[in-house]
Amino acid sequence: MPFAPLQNDSFLRACWRQATDHTPVWLMRQAGRYLPEYVATRARAGSFMGLATNVDYATEVTLQPLARYPLDAAILFSDILTVPDAMGLGLSFEAGEGPRFARPLRDEASIAALEVPDMDKLRYVFDAVASIRKALSGRVPLIGFSGSPWTLACYMVEGAGSSDYRKVKTLLYGRPDLMHHLLRINADAVAAYLNAQIDAGAQAVMVFDSWGGVLADGAFQEFSLASTARVLSQLKHKGADGSPVPRIVFTKGGGLWLEAMRALDCEVLGLDWTVNLGDARRRVGDGPQAKALQGNIDPNVLFAPPETIASEVAKVLQSFGRPHVDPATTGPTHIFNLGHGISQFTPPDHVHALVEAVHSQSRALRA
Amino acid sequence: MPFAPLQNDSFLRACWRQATDHTPVWLMRQAGRYLPEYVATRARAGSFMGLATNVDYATEVTLQPLARYPLDAAILFSDILTVPDAMGLGLSFEAGEGPRFARPLRDEASIAALEVPDMDKLRYVFDAVASIRKALSGRVPLIGFSGSPWTLACYMVEGAGSSDYRKVKTLLYGRPDLMHHLLRINADAVAAYLNAQIDAGAQAVMVFDSWGGVLADGAFQEFSLASTARVLSQLKHKGADGSPVPRIVFTKGGGLWLEAMRALDCEVLGLDWTVNLGDARRRVGDGPQAKALQGNIDPNVLFAPPETIASEVAKVLQSFGRPHVDPATTGPTHIFNLGHGISQFTPPDHVHALVEAVHSQSRALRA
Repeated sequence: MPFAPLQNDSFLRACWRQATDHTPVWLMRQAGRYLPEYVATRARAGSFMGLATNVDYATEVTLQPLARYPLDAAILFSDILTVPDAMGLGLSFEAGEGPRFARPLRDEASIAALEVPDMDKLRYVFDAVASIRKALSGRVPLIGFSGSPWTLACYMVEGAGSSDYRKVKTLLYGRPDLMHHLLRINADAVAAYLNAQIDAGAQAVMVFDSWGGVLADGAFQEFSLASTARVLSQLKHKGADGSPVPRIVFTKGGGLWLEAMRALDCEVLGLDWTVNLGDARRRVGDGPQAKALQGNIDPNVLFAPPETIASEVAKVLQSFGRPHVDPATTGPTHIFNLGHGISQFTPPDHVHALVEAVHSQSRALRA
Repeated sequence: MPFAPLQNDSFLRACWRQATDHTPVWLMRQAGRYLPEYVATRARAGSFMGLATNVDYATEVTLQPLARYPLDAAILFSDILTVPDAMGLGLSFEAGEGPRFARPLRDEASIAALEVPDMDKLRYVFDAVASIRKALSGRVPLIGFSGSPWTLACYMVEGAGSSDYRKVKTLLYGRPDLMHHLLRINADAVAAYLNAQIDAGAQAVMVFDSWGGVLADGAFQEFSLASTARVLSQLKHKGADGSPVPRIVFTKGGGLWLEAMRALDCEVLGLDWTVNLGDARRRVGDGPQAKALQGNIDPNVLFAPPETIASEVAKVLQSFGRPHVDPATTGPTHIFNLGHGISQFTPPDHVHALVEAVHSQSRALRA
């Protein structure tokens, strides 16, 4: 299948630490409930999973934010928990609550019985990737994604979100052998899942380690980071069109472990708002292990008036410092994003103010 | 009033960065629901606030963990939200939920009207401090405490715990002038509150910045750290018995900001489990701004078998590194603690394993 030529390569160039004429920007969860057109599509779909498993709906909502804002990338509309759902844990989303598994992992037998799921059960995701890539028609690149092995394990053991991660950490400290087994299965499943997204047309992939930051120093490296590395080691390097596929790893609350994450075989590290981008740039440094940095404005800035949004964007751009203008430099580049997913209560006009501020200010910084 | 001589000064010596023959240990929330005797006292008191506002009950529960475990410090039984309650916000604790304010701050008028409360409204706290100090009879030192100005502001604006801090951050980004006003009032109230605890007999004081870590880099320094510094600048240096009173600041999730926290006028920095103690020791360093470090084992380790608890204690002690044995050294000392409050589901026997492991292993490290 021929692919339309890419019209805006700023995001991919920044991933590969090449100079761009502006700082590319996209937003985690950019297709979401803050958009009235998303709410309308979801109402037609009947449920979140009804939306995510229908190729036409998934394509429609992925493109909705691009119709409003000049974003520099699209991200597949899906959920991080599709993989354990395909493993048979029974994912659902109750109204007003987060995700929930009907059959969480609560004993040794259920963990021992876990297997990498048949990727055919996730065909709806790969079909959505192909459909979205086609619908984008080369306008911007498409990012595929998955939850990290550790983040999936948190939900799989807790059965839902948690405030203390007591069940999953009890397993981790009490039965590290079982936890390692679970993480190996998850890592191999996530790798197969991301590779199938790449084959279907994803032009970059991102691993969301949303709960890596709840681990203790030492435990993070042993359980979360090592299993993310196991995913990365299995990923395809070339996409369906033969282009190289950059890999992004985002550990929320992982700012203290940047030196360890620097060793990951990926191109981009996502950062939350607690990290100073200038410090991160220095800590990641130059050389073969250098990374692009993605982030990191607090999504709550979007509740402030547009002029404050612009001044907070300026702070983030300035904390990163002088952008790359020389194609020969090899240190970190910057991809603008939020430090976490956008809030459902965000005024859509304010997102426009953010994207416009990133584009205009980052162009001016290069002038 | 004469005070009984102190029999175990290991905690205070470590606060002042003096050598001790073992690493002192106490646990955040050590008087709490994991102890059946606490649950029994609370049942007699009828409610959490009934417990906290009754001098005899507060004294009884403060001493309960000391009867079980050879802990090196006691901490006043109270809540971090007593100050805003005294400001008129109406604190309550619903069964199974966290704290809630009946009258949260939701408009400019309510914030403008806020005042430092009459400390007589908090007399029950100071009476409890005096009663506990007397009941301890010099066995171990007594720590007083308060929530930080920012952490109080989070609850005062949100009205309860929050997963996204949307309301308080909307105020922070949208009306920083109002937020600064609120934080100034809180800081002056917290300083008066801690000074009255010191006058009543507290031998150390701790500021719990439980929610400082939810702020963005830059916002943390401007809003949380600066208001904690305003508290510290007003604190009395000598206690009721004429002894100097060390000050502890604990910012959960603040590990990235250690270099900034180093400038605080306090003796001890509390750390959560995401921080490597050896890195923290190097980052805090020697010299006049050096601090003792308090922390930082994951409370979920207490769900593991006792032999695992002992090996995890060893990891924490070893991450800090060689303890002070030379009285002339001036770098960080270590006070062992959890990285956050103990879980209500903790098996009490496991706490004994933890305290015993800290004492025996840290003595062996000094031999």
